[in-house]
Amino acid sequence: MSVRAGIIVTGTEVLSGLIRDANGPWLSEALRGFGVELSQIVVVGDRPDDLRRALDFFADVDLVLTSGGLGPTADDLTAEVVAGWAGTTMVLDPGLEERIWAIVNSLRKRIGGEEAPMRAGARKQAHVPVGAVVLEPKGTAPGFLVGTSPVVAVLPGPPRELQRMWADAVNVEPLASLLRSAGSLEQRILRFFPLSEPQIAATLREIDADSLPFEVTTCLRRGELEVATVYRPAEASAYATFEAEIRERHGDVLFSDDGATIDEVIARALSGLTVATAESCTGGLMAGRLTDLAGSSAYVLGGVVVYSNEAKTAFADVDPELIAAHGAVSPEVARALAAGARSRFGADLGIGITGIAGPGGGTEEKPVGTVCLCVSSSWGVEERVVRLPGSRADVRDRTTTVALHMLRALLGSRA
Amino acid sequence: MSVRAGIIVTGTEVLSGLIRDANGPWLSEALRGFGVELSQIVVVGDRPDDLRRALDFFADVDLVLTSGGLGPTADDLTAEVVAGWAGTTMVLDPGLEERIWAIVNSLRKRIGGEEAPMRAGARKQAHVPVGAVVLEPKGTAPGFLVGTSPVVAVLPGPPRELQRMWADAVNVEPLASLLRSAGSLEQRILRFFPLSEPQIAATLREIDADSLPFEVTTCLRRGELEVATVYRPAEASAYATFEAEIRERHGDVLFSDDGATIDEVIARALSGLTVATAESCTGGLMAGRLTDLAGSSAYVLGGVVVYSNEAKTAFADVDPELIAAHGAVSPEVARALAAGARSRFGADLGIGITGIAGPGGGTEEKPVGTVCLCVSSSWGVEERVVRLPGSRADVRDRTTTVALHMLRALLGSRA
Repeated sequence: MSVRAGIIVTGTEVLSGLIRDANGPWLSEALRGFGVELSQIVVVGDRPDDLRRALDFFADVDLVLTSGGLGPTADDLTAEVVAGWAGTTMVLDPGLEERIWAIVNSLRKRIGGEEAPMRAGARKQAHVPVGAVVLEPKGTAPGFLVGTSPVVAVLPGPPRELQRMWADAVNVEPLASLLRSAGSLEQRILRFFPLSEPQIAATLREIDADSLPFEVTTCLRRGELEVATVYRPAEASAYATFEAEIRERHGDVLFSDDGATIDEVIARALSGLTVATAESCTGGLMAGRLTDLAGSSAYVLGGVVVYSNEAKTAFADVDPELIAAHGAVSPEVARALAAGARSRFGADLGIGITGIAGPGGGTEEKPVGTVCLCVSSSWGVEERVVRLPGSRADVRDRTTTVALHMLRALLGSRA
Repeated sequence: MSVRAGIIVTGTEVLSGLIRDANGPWLSEALRGFGVELSQIVVVGDRPDDLRRALDFFADVDLVLTSGGLGPTADDLTAEVVAGWAGTTMVLDPGLEERIWAIVNSLRKRIGGEEAPMRAGARKQAHVPVGAVVLEPKGTAPGFLVGTSPVVAVLPGPPRELQRMWADAVNVEPLASLLRSAGSLEQRILRFFPLSEPQIAATLREIDADSLPFEVTTCLRRGELEVATVYRPAEASAYATFEAEIRERHGDVLFSDDGATIDEVIARALSGLTVATAESCTGGLMAGRLTDLAGSSAYVLGGVVVYSNEAKTAFADVDPELIAAHGAVSPEVARALAAGARSRFGADLGIGITGIAGPGGGTEEKPVGTVCLCVSSSWGVEERVVRLPGSRADVRDRTTTVALHMLRALLGSRA
């Protein structure tokens, strides 16, 4: 059977834009893994009426997941509102209260705080909707499974707590049976670089993607274009035809067809080679991105962040005359930085980056967004000068994407 | 009068968790600046029925903002669905078509692509709801103001386009009048470090924050605790009393009361001093964070990323015997890294970081999340060994927050 779900993310801090929600996207991916179709995500503040309206909105789905609003403060009211909406009331669970207090009290001993109000907070969190299944706390807050049609899974707001509690919840009735009944969904993600949205739109139009039995999603992420498709097993051959048509047109810029990011593609392609960086405008983000992945210490030897001209010379052996002749932002200096990183760290590959991230510092000849990149190795060199759009943060982040694709090209050209 | 709004974020790529929405939070802050109260944010995929249901959900608000679904592909259907929902139809605007084609064609000449399908895409984007006000494209997609009760502002999905179009839209009728009628809202954000959620919850309980006439929101962000309050001008004195009570209890860990982040606080406090980094487990993210702000080249001299023991010695003068005696993750090595960064770059302040970001590499004595930090200067040293929770990414990010607060403490202790 087809199982439809809705997600309600609670919290005035999310609604007001103070904090970026991570739980909606995470739960969305988790549901897809179980073959559950997500209809909408609703973000509501900590106001009972707005939460009730969101629950009403999902009255016809099979499963509602809520995140947040289970803390010890008075504005944490999700459990109570869900209970009322499901036609039940709240009751104190004394055993749960003792378990929560044990957690809070050990925290209190470490960080301090008055006992009486913290004890009151633990008691508030130990109130349970009558008839609900309790999910044991992963931080201080318990979660709940309430009702049967829909099943409402009430989960905490901190992402780590929510993720660990979800892992428990999927094995607990009535959620376990509901998820088992959902069938399965396949997801495929094709990633391209460089490819623009108008180009992929033209392709989709040509092959009449609109008439396909499944939904095709395209999006630009960190400068790369993704084509994501979710389909039922019965649609596998239609999907294969679709993918073949896309590959025929854009196979030359397809760099991942198995969900791997460019970061993961690089990590695999390095296979024993080492890399070092010398970066100016990215200020450490290039090295930071290379070391995002666990195990990167096997191939990242290190890097230098050389903002000033003096540092470029002292840490990456850039000749001051080169800077004087061509300017700090120049292909020549990028090349010297890459060579300096390589030789200083004794690495197989060196990445050199120098540019103008903005918002200031641009000139007519070298406007904000101009970045010179070089990746060098014993078997060849990749060089580019790009002009990237967007804010300082955009330019810095996009630069690291361009560098990773240059690194991939250079690794691909190795004899 | 009070003006209520709803936001609809469209896009299967957002609903499915492939891409993290930036427009909801941004528009939420923009609305607050105009004194408009936001009721909910709904995220929907590119399915007409789900979008119509989201519009129905907001039938009783004064203003609905939509983002996304204005592109050239067939799954971009926001304008058409909004038009139908508002009781009107779509019509081709030939002048608009020429303006869009001029933009797309110049892009095509740069990046390539077939003319016919791209021309068809431009024509699709030039269809306008009858009676709507057209907002000129900031990328290739135009936006629209449709209807009067509610006013629906149909905006594009790419954040830069949306933000620039919003800046135009607020001056266009009927949106301009609606925003002018909304009165005003004050927002105050107090930021604390270190402070835990149970501690602030206890305080809010003691001072009976639940009975205040305005909404108080607390949230943990990058390891810091924020207390955000939005109130009407008439509630200013009640707010002042509330803030005084919070300050009385937690003033010692309050580091910002004017909206400034710790990054901005540090940038101000450095006032002429310079800083350099030598980092291991954060792999460049510390230097990357220090250089996030425009103008940071005035005080960040640079940094070294020293993953291997050899690099620690070669780039930050860490004595190999120190590493042999205490291990690479030790207070002694953190201190040597800080001193090395300072002396190598000739900086006033040096930051040294070494730790175990995980998921591998932990031991019983030094589990994953153990990080040794040191900030040194001519007038003193701050040192800490912390054990941070969470994923590799959490540990790395939280480490940079801890380091910035140590830097702040050291700057505060300067005679």
